Amino acid sequence: MSETTTSTTGTVSTEQNRREQALTEKVIASFEDTPDPRLKEIMQALTQHLHAFIRETRLTEAEWEAGIAFLTSTGNITDDKRQEFILLSDVLGASMQTITVSNPVAGEATEATVFGPFFVEDAPEIPNGGDMSFGAAGQPCWVEGTVTDTHGTPIPNARIEVWEADEDGFYDVQYDDGRTTARAHLFTDEHGTYRFWGLKPTPYPIPHDGPVGAMLSATNRSPVRAAHLHFMVTAENHRSLVTHIFAAGDPQIEIGDSVFGVKDSLIKQFQDQPAGSPTPDGRDLKDRPWSRVRFDVLLAPAGT
Amino acid sequence: MSETTTSTTGTVSTEQNRREQALTEKVIASFEDTPDPRLKEIMQALTQHLHAFIRETRLTEAEWEAGIAFLTSTGNITDDKRQEFILLSDVLGASMQTITVSNPVAGEATEATVFGPFFVEDAPEIPNGGDMSFGAAGQPCWVEGTVTDTHGTPIPNARIEVWEADEDGFYDVQYDDGRTTARAHLFTDEHGTYRFWGLKPTPYPIPHDGPVGAMLSATNRSPVRAAHLHFMVTAENHRSLVTHIFAAGDPQIEIGDSVFGVKDSLIKQFQDQPAGSPTPDGRDLKDRPWSRVRFDVLLAPAGT
Repeated sequence: MSETTTSTTGTVSTEQNRREQALTEKVIASFEDTPDPRLKEIMQALTQHLHAFIRETRLTEAEWEAGIAFLTSTGNITDDKRQEFILLSDVLGASMQTITVSNPVAGEATEATVFGPFFVEDAPEIPNGGDMSFGAAGQPCWVEGTVTDTHGTPIPNARIEVWEADEDGFYDVQYDDGRTTARAHLFTDEHGTYRFWGLKPTPYPIPHDGPVGAMLSATNRSPVRAAHLHFMVTAENHRSLVTHIFAAGDPQIEIGDSVFGVKDSLIKQFQDQPAGSPTPDGRDLKDRPWSRVRFDVLLAPAGT
Repeated sequence: MSETTTSTTGTVSTEQNRREQALTEKVIASFEDTPDPRLKEIMQALTQHLHAFIRETRLTEAEWEAGIAFLTSTGNITDDKRQEFILLSDVLGASMQTITVSNPVAGEATEATVFGPFFVEDAPEIPNGGDMSFGAAGQPCWVEGTVTDTHGTPIPNARIEVWEADEDGFYDVQYDDGRTTARAHLFTDEHGTYRFWGLKPTPYPIPHDGPVGAMLSATNRSPVRAAHLHFMVTAENHRSLVTHIFAAGDPQIEIGDSVFGVKDSLIKQFQDQPAGSPTPDGRDLKDRPWSRVRFDVLLAPAGT
């Protein structure tokens, strides 16, 4: 019992290590008779990492109690409208890691990012070149691009869902008046191209008046999401893509997107256009400045 | 991008590994400015293990959703009376591992085990030799022993709290009538010895009508705790000890204590005594059988 090993927080005796390891192994063994092999794998891996976390940090009983209290208040604030556990997963990068694992690299296919809680089924259809803002406040932005496979072959009739916050940082569903704005779907034309009017995206904070916000505050982290425009692109025989585009130069990218959704490949140049400059489709924006951005989407093959 | 590495569930390309690792590192770095160094250490270790869990299991989005739903229902059932997060921690062995880490080996000091939710402050005092059952149903059991330091020196006036379930598997606080039974405190005498009448302990299930119970059921695990009698022993200049004793021969020890509280060193022989056999203190139990057990407690020095 005089032998010791070194941990990050000091030395742990051989007998102490033996007791801790024996306990971990006993818990892992308790899942041995799980009928579903996948559930067994998940519970055993969860146990392994949960115990390693406790052992490595030499977690104290007071810290364990703080953890239980944190989970309890996260549960208390969660209801049909507020999902604090998803927020927690988001700010720990667990949502983004799950997305990353679930959407493996397939050649140059466009990268996926977090889905977020603001998608709505059955958003209105707009024609190519239509306006998805439906009157939401913000600077008009012309968005255009192609949808192709990873060999560059255009994909006609791909379905594109787009949604975003207004310039005050709110999605339509966050207003009480039942409006449907700043969301739509459209389809690529026979050349695999698409274009629409949207809004230049604006940074906004995730809800940070609950336990997750308190954690961000205690760790000096920003609750703000980098400005982004959501896309979901689906086409037969291709892997569905859920992603955003981000605006180059948005300072929040440097500060850090609160949910780790930013990928370098998804940062696009939103080109500011002065008021009065001619628009791509001849739309008269009167005295309003506008911007334009290009986003070419490459879809991975289905089943990859 | 054609290079690959092998994970437990198949091959992951080099570029895919790079993306996943880069994300983990970004999340860890996001905690770099945490003012409290201990909070920083804990959040970074938590991130490391959470991400490793997701990557190793190749967690799917559907499984992530199931995890969120599980935590949400665990939060929903938790209130002032029901603490499902503690139950969850208990059945994953996280509570017991925290106890193990927080009570390091100190010579032959008696091992600690889980505290459980049924301790009550200000339980009545009984004299040495008194009856802590206060009428709770169960077979009488004579419990005796010494409290010493790890060198065997007796500790007079050590405070011993004892509490346990009745023969129906319920603690007093689980009844609606406000009874105080099967709990008490007493002190060691000038020789460091103690003795009291209690009840032979009975196995009972943890609450298993919630999400934790559903998880135990899905993994073919028993919700039953091995029969036990709780002790908390405190004495000046010594580390406080929270522990149980278990009954040798209880089949639940072999099946598995649902919260992993059993340690070999805490399994004691409860010796059954036939009805009518003389009791240690001359108490007349009439036609009732009884049992006896010895539990010698060794307290670690304070600050170990």
